[in-house]
Amino acid sequence: MKVYLSGEIHTDWRDQIVEGAAGLEVEFSAPVTDHAASDDCGVAILGIEDNKFWHDHKGAKLNAIRTRMAIEAADVVVVRFGEKYKQWNAAFDAGYAAAKGKALIVMHGADHQHALKEVDAAALAVCETPQQVVEMLTYVLNGTLPS
Amino acid sequence: MKVYLSGEIHTDWRDQIVEGAAGLEVEFSAPVTDHAASDDCGVAILGIEDNKFWHDHKGAKLNAIRTRMAIEAADVVVVRFGEKYKQWNAAFDAGYAAAKGKALIVMHGADHQHALKEVDAAALAVCETPQQVVEMLTYVLNGTLPS
Amino acid sequence: MKVYLSGEIHTDWRDQIVEGAAGLEVEFSAPVTDHAASDDCGVAILGIEDNKFWHDHKGAKLNAIRTRMAIEAADVVVVRFGEKYKQWNAAFDAGYAAAKGKALIVMHGADHQHALKEVDAAALAVCETPQQVVEMLTYVLNGTLPS
Amino acid sequence: MKVYLSGEIHTDWRDQIVEGAAGLEVEFSAPVTDHAASDDCGVAILGIEDNKFWHDHKGAKLNAIRTRMAIEAADVVVVRFGEKYKQWNAAFDAGYAAAKGKALIVMHGADHQHALKEVDAAALAVCETPQQVVEMLTYVLNGTLPS
Amino acid sequence: MKVYLSGEIHTDWRDQIVEGAAGLEVEFSAPVTDHAASDDCGVAILGIEDNKFWHDHKGAKLNAIRTRMAIEAADVVVVRFGEKYKQWNAAFDAGYAAAKGKALIVMHGADHQHALKEVDAAALAVCETPQQVVEMLTYVLNGTLPS
Amino acid sequence: MKVYLSGEIHTDWRDQIVEGAAGLEVEFSAPVTDHAASDDCGVAILGIEDNKFWHDHKGAKLNAIRTRMAIEAADVVVVRFGEKYKQWNAAFDAGYAAAKGKALIVMHGADHQHALKEVDAAALAVCETPQQVVEMLTYVLNGTLPS
Amino acid sequence: MKVYLSGEIHTDWRDQIVEGAAGLEVEFSAPVTDHAASDDCGVAILGIEDNKFWHDHKGAKLNAIRTRMAIEAADVVVVRFGEKYKQWNAAFDAGYAAAKGKALIVMHGADHQHALKEVDAAALAVCETPQQVVEMLTYVLNGTLPS
Amino acid sequence: MKVYLSGEIHTDWRDQIVEGAAGLEVEFSAPVTDHAASDDCGVAILGIEDNKFWHDHKGAKLNAIRTRMAIEAADVVVVRFGEKYKQWNAAFDAGYAAAKGKALIVMHGADHQHALKEVDAAALAVCETPQQVVEMLTYVLNGTLPS
Repeated sequence: MKVYLSGEIHTDWRDQIVEGAAGLEVEFSAPVTDHAASDDCGVAILGIEDNKFWHDHKGAKLNAIRTRMAIEAADVVVVRFGEKYKQWNAAFDAGYAAAKGKALIVMHGADHQHALKEVDAAALAVCETPQQVVEMLTYVLNGTLPS
Repeated sequence: MKVYLSGEIHTDWRDQIVEGAAGLEVEFSAPVTDHAASDDCGVAILGIEDNKFWHDHKGAKLNAIRTRMAIEAADVVVVRFGEKYKQWNAAFDAGYAAAKGKALIVMHGADHQHALKEVDAAALAVCETPQQVVEMLTYVLNGTLPS
Repeated sequence: MKVYLSGEIHTDWRDQIVEGAAGLEVEFSAPVTDHAASDDCGVAILGIEDNKFWHDHKGAKLNAIRTRMAIEAADVVVVRFGEKYKQWNAAFDAGYAAAKGKALIVMHGADHQHALKEVDAAALAVCETPQQVVEMLTYVLNGTLPS
Repeated sequence: MKVYLSGEIHTDWRDQIVEGAAGLEVEFSAPVTDHAASDDCGVAILGIEDNKFWHDHKGAKLNAIRTRMAIEAADVVVVRFGEKYKQWNAAFDAGYAAAKGKALIVMHGADHQHALKEVDAAALAVCETPQQVVEMLTYVLNGTLPS
Repeated sequence: MKVYLSGEIHTDWRDQIVEGAAGLEVEFSAPVTDHAASDDCGVAILGIEDNKFWHDHKGAKLNAIRTRMAIEAADVVVVRFGEKYKQWNAAFDAGYAAAKGKALIVMHGADHQHALKEVDAAALAVCETPQQVVEMLTYVLNGTLPS
Repeated sequence: MKVYLSGEIHTDWRDQIVEGAAGLEVEFSAPVTDHAASDDCGVAILGIEDNKFWHDHKGAKLNAIRTRMAIEAADVVVVRFGEKYKQWNAAFDAGYAAAKGKALIVMHGADHQHALKEVDAAALAVCETPQQVVEMLTYVLNGTLPS
Repeated sequence: MKVYLSGEIHTDWRDQIVEGAAGLEVEFSAPVTDHAASDDCGVAILGIEDNKFWHDHKGAKLNAIRTRMAIEAADVVVVRFGEKYKQWNAAFDAGYAAAKGKALIVMHGADHQHALKEVDAAALAVCETPQQVVEMLTYVLNGTLPS
Repeated sequence: MKVYLSGEIHTDWRDQIVEGAAGLEVEFSAPVTDHAASDDCGVAILGIEDNKFWHDHKGAKLNAIRTRMAIEAADVVVVRFGEKYKQWNAAFDAGYAAAKGKALIVMHGADHQHALKEVDAAALAVCETPQQVVEMLTYVLNGTLPS
């Protein structure tokens, strides 16, 4: 099973899932989580831009090569919304994955429940913790529930 | 041409576009913009829920009947991000529209430029005002530029 | 909006919806609801069969010309499960519609809730009465809630 | 060849097919067949629900991650209808598989022939026993008939 | 309903269907049935060819503009096999229509039954006369059987 | 029938086809053929750019809203290559149309034959004059050849 | 590269291609070429039929499990028309493969040229001998021409 | 990751990329770059043609077996435009890849910027050198930027 881990990049939630899923037949993918590299990749390779819009544009498109390919290949897309920032790219990925018919799992705290209701409505599961994602992957693959 | 107007529902930007586009062969669609009705439609029709999550869930799914159908039918999807709120449903719609191969126009103020870089990267045009959307629709349909 | 009304054919639920939706811009379609004609159409036109399996097979395929075409054309598929019979064709239509990405509304009594949980899980709305379907169509098209 | 075994979970028909097909290049998949785990997986991982509808809803969606993925990946979908229960999820899977263009094999007893005529009409083969499924897989892969 | 009438062009079966279906909401399409024009259209417009292969190639491709468009637009494709000639283009159209998910009706005499078994296996109905096609279209659209 | 006329914009070939096809049931579409407007539309509406690349980029994307929509809607795409310029956008449109399964007609002079062999290989017809396009549309729609 | 070898089953053309292609990275597939098994597979496994139509129907559908799967998986579909029989299943496969966007190679003698013009028009290559197929596969994979 | 290298065949840019990407998990594909073989493959295998158009036609179609298959399989399509020739096949490939939703990277010198603006507008990255392609592939796969 291929699982793409989209969204928040400032905590170690991806590591927790990958570690928790050790032993399962899962192949994980993710966006580049080095924030500085992700922001500057476009101009670093393709030449500097004076205008911040085009600076970001080049980077966002280069990152899209990776993220689109990973979402297309995924069976399951997990999207985590953290406490901070606008995180519109996470919601964009969720919409993209939903339109492609991917199984969508959304992870967020209770305080974001109302604001994420449309995203949650497109999901096959809504949870709060990496541990729950691990338990779901374990159940989906092996049919066993947490004891 | 069918144009879906997604996103912010607290200002009159949709009216400005519809009025400005009078005379063009455009058929506009939009989500339900009555905030209270949109929030409560699920339970009003399908029965109350004690849990706020399911209250919202029912409503979001009922609204999805309208919004998915409109995005599928659209040639162009315009997504506006306003000054306030999380607006994750707007970004979700943008991702959904992009994955469906719709022509995407994103409208937002300069202060959101960096946060929306991934959404903008999927768009065929990024603008700030309803007047610019009208000018684009006029150009795309009639080939004439603003004088 | 095009709405296909699938499922139970022994009560007048379709008539209630069509009458209730008078005035809405909805085009309804349905399977042939004349039970005898539906059962015998294959052999009546294409020649008799000694074997009941092929008798039914010819009829079911001829009916499929109508039902597949209607589901493909529909924006919304309403599937009603009644009190009696196996109604596997209703569940088949629900699965077919779900796989085609149609907005699915399921209508059934509370006693069938557990048995229909997989079908309900694929729906954007689950309700019990034709009146609720009318209210949903009204809301989805006009944005107005029942008073 | 990938074969998904959908439907009835109370007899050992899956085991019979898997054993009979030993030596063939077939990779089988199936839903979780532990009835209790399948019913309660949603609340066990994602939190309890007072309302039975949502209890079932969470579980059905979590199971859908597994079943949709397996049907999408399958070349052949075998759906068995047993003697008991409504088995609407089996018919739903058959409709889903048909709409996705999968080769559909339906297995059921003669007493269900009339009620399953629409499902059978979408199938490439209708049979009664696991042994027949094994013989078909053997023929399809190796071109040899039972002696 | 859009119905494409493919195959044999030497008898008046298309006229019989069109006349019989007068009053039904059906829009019929067909290939160019002027045999000489159909054979020579390529070179007549695009320049002569010494080699018969290219003479035919140009014509077949020009005819394909019409036939592919008509099959794509059709809800139902009727393919008739007559008594004479190889009629490989009829079988090609049947395969093309089947792959596009069109409802396929095959019409042929009993003597071709064995040779057409693979084509018939992909059809929703197999019949012998134009009258049967009319009766099927009448039933599919109006739900009424021949008296 | 919907026909998109792509490619060279410096001669009146589109007018010749539209006039020649008067009386046929054809709906023509085309890119914006006002060269200056086409080049500057992006910055005229969305704001000036110092860098010629982004100046062109904004314009090309805005034009793509029109051209992609027109190609998607077309049954037939006619692409003309003239005597001058690189005309890579014409070849791009041809590739785009081919991948979308559109019927492709290529029009060019004999001197470009070798350079266009890959484009011609994807076409259903290759011709030199607008009159030939009119004759093909006439034949495809009415079955009549030029006298 | 996956190559499906469709059509005539009475000569050893498939063996010639497979042997000639030894050393190339090609995975070949084919229908069941045991004529008797292919004709009787349906009733041998699924039960006898008095009516020859249903006898053939069961067999043709069972064979379709293999052939559809193989065509779907193929990169290249080679269809050979021999000297005898109607061979409508070969033309059906060609149409099916064309509609699925597969690279189509047609092999037949010169005497069938006119009757196969529509099938040839959908092909990327038309040839007469297995040796030519081997040479094409060699060129397509390795870029080397026969010396 | 699968990367197809389309376009100019007279310099060693493909070798530079393949060498630079040594160690990355990338599988490269390309058209046949032996110019003489590519031009004459059709007639060498399928028989000579007097007419240059059909000589080229046969070759272009045979090459299309390889190129279409490679583009379909690719995650990323890199298209290089060189200094000379019309290179319409390169632009055709770019359009084909864009329509198939492939990640598109365009490589060309500054002098072609204006003429390629429509092609560049469909790309996720525009660059000038093979080294930049290597750096992008490295970043996309490993998340590391050139130091």
